[in-house]
Amino acid sequence: MAKHIKRSIKSGLPPGTLVHIGAKSDREIRITVMDYHAGGCEEKEIKALKECVYYSDTSIVSWIDVEGLHEVEIVRQVGDCQGLHPLVLEDILNTNQRPKVEDYGDYLYIVLKMLHNGDGTGIVAEQVSLVLGSNFVISFQEGMKGDVFNPIRERLRSGKGKIREMGADYLAYALMDAVVDNYFVVLERVGERIEELEDAVMADPRPETVREIHQLKREVILLRKAVWPLREVISALERRESKLISEKVVVYLRDLYDHTIQVIDNIEASRDMLAGMLDVYLSSISNRMNEVMKFLTIIGTIFIPLTFIAGVYGMNFQNMPELHWQWGYFACLFLMALVAVFLLIYFKRKRWL
Amino acid sequence: MAKHIKRSIKSGLPPGTLVHIGAKSDREIRITVMDYHAGGCEEKEIKALKECVYYSDTSIVSWIDVEGLHEVEIVRQVGDCQGLHPLVLEDILNTNQRPKVEDYGDYLYIVLKMLHNGDGTGIVAEQVSLVLGSNFVISFQEGMKGDVFNPIRERLRSGKGKIREMGADYLAYALMDAVVDNYFVVLERVGERIEELEDAVMADPRPETVREIHQLKREVILLRKAVWPLREVISALERRESKLISEKVVVYLRDLYDHTIQVIDNIEASRDMLAGMLDVYLSSISNRMNEVMKFLTIIGTIFIPLTFIAGVYGMNFQNMPELHWQWGYFACLFLMALVAVFLLIYFKRKRWL
Amino acid sequence: MAKHIKRSIKSGLPPGTLVHIGAKSDREIRITVMDYHAGGCEEKEIKALKECVYYSDTSIVSWIDVEGLHEVEIVRQVGDCQGLHPLVLEDILNTNQRPKVEDYGDYLYIVLKMLHNGDGTGIVAEQVSLVLGSNFVISFQEGMKGDVFNPIRERLRSGKGKIREMGADYLAYALMDAVVDNYFVVLERVGERIEELEDAVMADPRPETVREIHQLKREVILLRKAVWPLREVISALERRESKLISEKVVVYLRDLYDHTIQVIDNIEASRDMLAGMLDVYLSSISNRMNEVMKFLTIIGTIFIPLTFIAGVYGMNFQNMPELHWQWGYFACLFLMALVAVFLLIYFKRKRWL
Amino acid sequence: MAKHIKRSIKSGLPPGTLVHIGAKSDREIRITVMDYHAGGCEEKEIKALKECVYYSDTSIVSWIDVEGLHEVEIVRQVGDCQGLHPLVLEDILNTNQRPKVEDYGDYLYIVLKMLHNGDGTGIVAEQVSLVLGSNFVISFQEGMKGDVFNPIRERLRSGKGKIREMGADYLAYALMDAVVDNYFVVLERVGERIEELEDAVMADPRPETVREIHQLKREVILLRKAVWPLREVISALERRESKLISEKVVVYLRDLYDHTIQVIDNIEASRDMLAGMLDVYLSSISNRMNEVMKFLTIIGTIFIPLTFIAGVYGMNFQNMPELHWQWGYFACLFLMALVAVFLLIYFKRKRWL
Amino acid sequence: MAKHIKRSIKSGLPPGTLVHIGAKSDREIRITVMDYHAGGCEEKEIKALKECVYYSDTSIVSWIDVEGLHEVEIVRQVGDCQGLHPLVLEDILNTNQRPKVEDYGDYLYIVLKMLHNGDGTGIVAEQVSLVLGSNFVISFQEGMKGDVFNPIRERLRSGKGKIREMGADYLAYALMDAVVDNYFVVLERVGERIEELEDAVMADPRPETVREIHQLKREVILLRKAVWPLREVISALERRESKLISEKVVVYLRDLYDHTIQVIDNIEASRDMLAGMLDVYLSSISNRMNEVMKFLTIIGTIFIPLTFIAGVYGMNFQNMPELHWQWGYFACLFLMALVAVFLLIYFKRKRWL
Repeated sequence: MAKHIKRSIKSGLPPGTLVHIGAKSDREIRITVMDYHAGGCEEKEIKALKECVYYSDTSIVSWIDVEGLHEVEIVRQVGDCQGLHPLVLEDILNTNQRPKVEDYGDYLYIVLKMLHNGDGTGIVAEQVSLVLGSNFVISFQEGMKGDVFNPIRERLRSGKGKIREMGADYLAYALMDAVVDNYFVVLERVGERIEELEDAVMADPRPETVREIHQLKREVILLRKAVWPLREVISALERRESKLISEKVVVYLRDLYDHTIQVIDNIEASRDMLAGMLDVYLSSISNRMNEVMKFLTIIGTIFIPLTFIAGVYGMNFQNMPELHWQWGYFACLFLMALVAVFLLIYFKRKRWL
Repeated sequence: MAKHIKRSIKSGLPPGTLVHIGAKSDREIRITVMDYHAGGCEEKEIKALKECVYYSDTSIVSWIDVEGLHEVEIVRQVGDCQGLHPLVLEDILNTNQRPKVEDYGDYLYIVLKMLHNGDGTGIVAEQVSLVLGSNFVISFQEGMKGDVFNPIRERLRSGKGKIREMGADYLAYALMDAVVDNYFVVLERVGERIEELEDAVMADPRPETVREIHQLKREVILLRKAVWPLREVISALERRESKLISEKVVVYLRDLYDHTIQVIDNIEASRDMLAGMLDVYLSSISNRMNEVMKFLTIIGTIFIPLTFIAGVYGMNFQNMPELHWQWGYFACLFLMALVAVFLLIYFKRKRWL
Repeated sequence: MAKHIKRSIKSGLPPGTLVHIGAKSDREIRITVMDYHAGGCEEKEIKALKECVYYSDTSIVSWIDVEGLHEVEIVRQVGDCQGLHPLVLEDILNTNQRPKVEDYGDYLYIVLKMLHNGDGTGIVAEQVSLVLGSNFVISFQEGMKGDVFNPIRERLRSGKGKIREMGADYLAYALMDAVVDNYFVVLERVGERIEELEDAVMADPRPETVREIHQLKREVILLRKAVWPLREVISALERRESKLISEKVVVYLRDLYDHTIQVIDNIEASRDMLAGMLDVYLSSISNRMNEVMKFLTIIGTIFIPLTFIAGVYGMNFQNMPELHWQWGYFACLFLMALVAVFLLIYFKRKRWL
Repeated sequence: MAKHIKRSIKSGLPPGTLVHIGAKSDREIRITVMDYHAGGCEEKEIKALKECVYYSDTSIVSWIDVEGLHEVEIVRQVGDCQGLHPLVLEDILNTNQRPKVEDYGDYLYIVLKMLHNGDGTGIVAEQVSLVLGSNFVISFQEGMKGDVFNPIRERLRSGKGKIREMGADYLAYALMDAVVDNYFVVLERVGERIEELEDAVMADPRPETVREIHQLKREVILLRKAVWPLREVISALERRESKLISEKVVVYLRDLYDHTIQVIDNIEASRDMLAGMLDVYLSSISNRMNEVMKFLTIIGTIFIPLTFIAGVYGMNFQNMPELHWQWGYFACLFLMALVAVFLLIYFKRKRWL
Repeated sequence: MAKHIKRSIKSGLPPGTLVHIGAKSDREIRITVMDYHAGGCEEKEIKALKECVYYSDTSIVSWIDVEGLHEVEIVRQVGDCQGLHPLVLEDILNTNQRPKVEDYGDYLYIVLKMLHNGDGTGIVAEQVSLVLGSNFVISFQEGMKGDVFNPIRERLRSGKGKIREMGADYLAYALMDAVVDNYFVVLERVGERIEELEDAVMADPRPETVREIHQLKREVILLRKAVWPLREVISALERRESKLISEKVVVYLRDLYDHTIQVIDNIEASRDMLAGMLDVYLSSISNRMNEVMKFLTIIGTIFIPLTFIAGVYGMNFQNMPELHWQWGYFACLFLMALVAVFLLIYFKRKRWL
């Protein structure tokens, strides 16, 4: 995590100063533009956004997708081109945002968290910023792990579904829907890991298990932080407080809202299960420990009286009649066996064995 | 659960794509239609819904009951026939919905959870979707364990009660009431299992008991998830935000709301009892453990001084006067008995035995 | 509790079906009627309510008190006579209601819980239903343990206080006040039992104590369930949403509301104390256990080195100079005493003894 | 506490019955009257309130202070004289009120809790009732431990500050301010006791410490109960819902509200610290216990192999070559020392010692 | 902390009495005045505020910064000069305020908490009071550890950014932003300390670790108390309830609000991690303890049967055939080795070793 730039470096800088806060990346920034209307879709990849082409024809919708935030200059160009407020650009670059929606009149600024199952490292959260204008959408991604927008690109190219017939607001919805749909994939992996842990806790509880439970707990908290505020964001969009959201999209937003609630329900269920698991772990571990201690103590307890008997007949008194008896030794061994058997039966009866 | 289709398979598909998410079933889908009015009731079972007959006569109410969701095509037919929104059909097929009500103007879409006592496998939740129009109700069930609507069919056939005299909104109420009434049956079984567990925890606490407590906890959480949102659903209907709910039905909905609150109260009581039970279990188990350890330690402690005495007289010093005394051995045994009795009395006094 | 009829028997029955749900009783149902006005009070006990006499003279207020709900027919007669809605009668007979108030226009339906200190069995809750009309009050009690309305009957007979000068709404207030006043009696008994338990936990913590703490916890939860919703009920009455509540009674209802808040405060305090008590119990029990184990382990630890010394001089080596020394044995005993004393001092210093 | 009269004695009495509920006192009731205006202040102590003098001159404000509630008759006289509602008098006498404000049109009835540091017995709460009229304030105190109003009397006599220039509402504010100011004194004592306990928990945790923690917890709960509702009381006054509160006093009430919030913050911080302290206590005690057990077990473990060796050479086999070896005994002792040293090093390495 | 003056010394004093409550300081009070407009900035340091110069030219904004509160007289002078309400001055001097904003019509009074990483002593909180007028800002600091306003002074001098073009409200925003920005620095240090603790808990859990966890917990609670109310403060300013906040500043305040939410999120995450850490600590410590006890008990258990065998052959019976057997001793040693090996294998199998 040495490459991660922390928030504190911005302390003292004037508001609107553009600094990239987040994981550094070596990948090149990619900007793709898709212009589409009901009849077709044009796609191009560009390196810089020198000329800003606005279509006066409002039936043409432009989707500008910026992948990678580590070059401040490119983000500034995109922002200047579309006339974005410096504070918006500052927020796009600072990947510590929580999901939110801000209304700047001509455009809406929406922040989401895209989640991926990291390989071995748990869940990875990536910030996605959407700027929704009257006939354009700009999306900014950190570009760490690839995006989940390919099915949407495919639908735009092929014209399947209603996406080309609808406006920019529907595109923004579709992008958010893709992000939320991916939460289910992430959650199911979490569910599987919980089930694995559950079995491990029962069968072979080890100190590392606690660490894993806590690791998973922390990931679920990350999930919560990504999803809880999203609910309010979608709810605000659904209430159509901005004129950029058309009547036709509301029913889709309501559906998206529903999905978010389902994700939250799943997250809360996972939390409950993880919380309960620590209890099971502790009772499981103390159970094993008790078992060991009990067994060993019982072994000890059986031998203590036997050793005492042996000690008695190891005494050197001159007048000890038993010692001189022909069968004394064997009688003594028999007595010891008797005591041992009696104790074993007693422990068995008391259900201690 | 291998047959259970997960939510993630829908990730990336456009909204409104119909995919069945839930447990697969081999049973055939059954569609039954009941048309009734104050004077009578006509009942038929159909295989497909090719022709949609609407009665212009609004005094005739139609109840179309679809049992089984695993054939997407049939659900699509029913939906097309009644002009349902694709998002509604998508939700009907996705059995992960939480209880909700959605107003689509011409019709209300209501989601409920039907609960059954599974045999040995705990509580089984089945999704019930209701579509309430001006003079029809369509109900979709997963069809896993049979339904709880038979008493209503009986009432429709026989004309008992007011059901044939009232409109489609009363039928929807009656169906919801049947579902909620069944919760009491499920809850009483839960109550009995809690009582059984409670006795087990006191009499013979075992590791499996914790597992059972957690299993029951999880079922109660399932119950909560099914019932809590239902409260808001019924409350929304009772407020008559849709014109499809008539004045006359409000008093019945208020009664239903009341029942839901009672169910919630029962669930919360069950939760409290289960939470307390884990405490009792832990104190019960640690109590038994303590008892064992104390007993064994006391046994050990009594023999340690005795063994020490035996050890002393087992020493080989030449000049040990006691060894040559005629009654030395017996005096030594008497001393040992004395020490043992003294310790027993001491432990008794201290209430350690 | 074999006689207790459960809610599930009603599952599947149409709404408004009258079934008594609650503890069965052999006592005969008693109906008493008191008609009063500022000038006097007439009292009679009747067996059945065949003729319903309404006083057109609104200055006469009737109080009909029904004790015992186990004969459905009698309740139905009373209901029909006053024109009560079937759902109200259903709720009166189902003793699982939570406190609530329902406005049926001509009359208010109020549900309360009357609490008694059972003898040895903890708190007993009994359902009281009040129907408040413009110039009558009907009260339904389960009739298990006698009621708390006698002081009100006395006041009506003697004309003490303002009760005969006020309307039916004041009578309803007075009945509710009597029920709430009785909560204080019940709560003080709970407080005493908590104090007793507290002493027991400190002096002699035993497994049964946990059970008693849980029993008391459950009773306090029962209390909460009876009182929390009552707050809203009285608050709703105080807001005068129904025209049946006159201006003059509001100040009394506010006073009653205050009492309810005091009861709730007391209940919450009891809960806190019970929750803390379990902590004290656990630390008390583990303290005693630790004490025992520590003592025994110390005893053992002192004797272990001594036994070792005895073992050394019990060895049979030919060349062991000490054995042949004249005072060897006594020196050895002295050494043992020295070791024991040294260890005792050491333990004392370390504060382990 | 034998003298404390409980709430339950009022059960069954009609509303408005005057009964003193609280600690009985032998001190005589004292009534002091202070009449003041911008120019001066007249002070007198009276035994009974036979004649009620009202100043038509509204610039004269009267403060009637009643200390002691145990003589119901005197409270009744004061109440009748000022025309107070019977329910107000009932509440004044019942010292179980929670802080509240009630608007009776002509006057406001305010209940507060005055807190004192009891000597050795923890915090003592005393009920203060204020009746604020247009140009008078009546204050009722239980009179157990002296009051906190002396600085205000002093200010009235000397004319310092603005108190003589302002109306009765400012006087009521000043009295409440004096009560709240005293909370800080009480809270700082609580803070000191928490710090003392904290040190005790670290240095020498004993069972009594738990008891003290719980005692302090209970006192903090008492504080909470006294202060939380006060916030709403002052907030209600500040909103000027009554015409008795003048515009000029609002800024002072806002200041008082602020102080109350500070008190609440302090109380919550104390609660958090006490909650954390129990954790520290438990880990501290188990730490000490573990230390003891570990030490003793290690001692035992070192001697067990040594005793075994001694046991081996105490066997009586005829053919044991070592026994006949010249230096056998000393070699054996050396072997024992070796084993002991090896074990000590091993334990040291493992950090068990 | 002997120099810290407590709140209780004010108990009994009339409202508006100026007393400094907080840490005493020996540093001299410093007052700096900066007058700026779009074109330039004039800066001067003064000792006393005798003449109050108001610029009728509203384009000139004055920032008066007072560092140090321990001389009541100087604060009084500043206050009198600008006509501040005595209650405002009282609050400025009392450093126990929680963040708040108060509207006095002509000016807003804002309280913030400035946080510093103390050296070894944890987080230090310092109170900052802002008074925002139409064309001036007065800031009061405790002056304990230097301030975070230097970057703003620099920006004013150099004219970088928009600060000189905006009004007094923007200056107040900039000061608050500087304070909030510094929270991130403090939080990152907290984060590092948590990570260090986390490693310590895993690697080498010691009693001091608990103390450190609690210390950190308390600091996080301090942070919460400083930041939570700030959210409401900024939200209130953003809603522009006062005319002193201009339209242009709202977007900046919204940005500041966002930062505050991020700080709160971070704090809550830290709390969760600390709460979880105690669990890990306890399970880690009990794990180590169990390991020790188990090892030692196993050692003991292996030797107990061996010692018993030695005891048997140490008995002095005359007729013990094994004793006279040529290889008896070696057979006995072999038997002992056998028993030991068998037990070791058994323990290994049971996974106890």
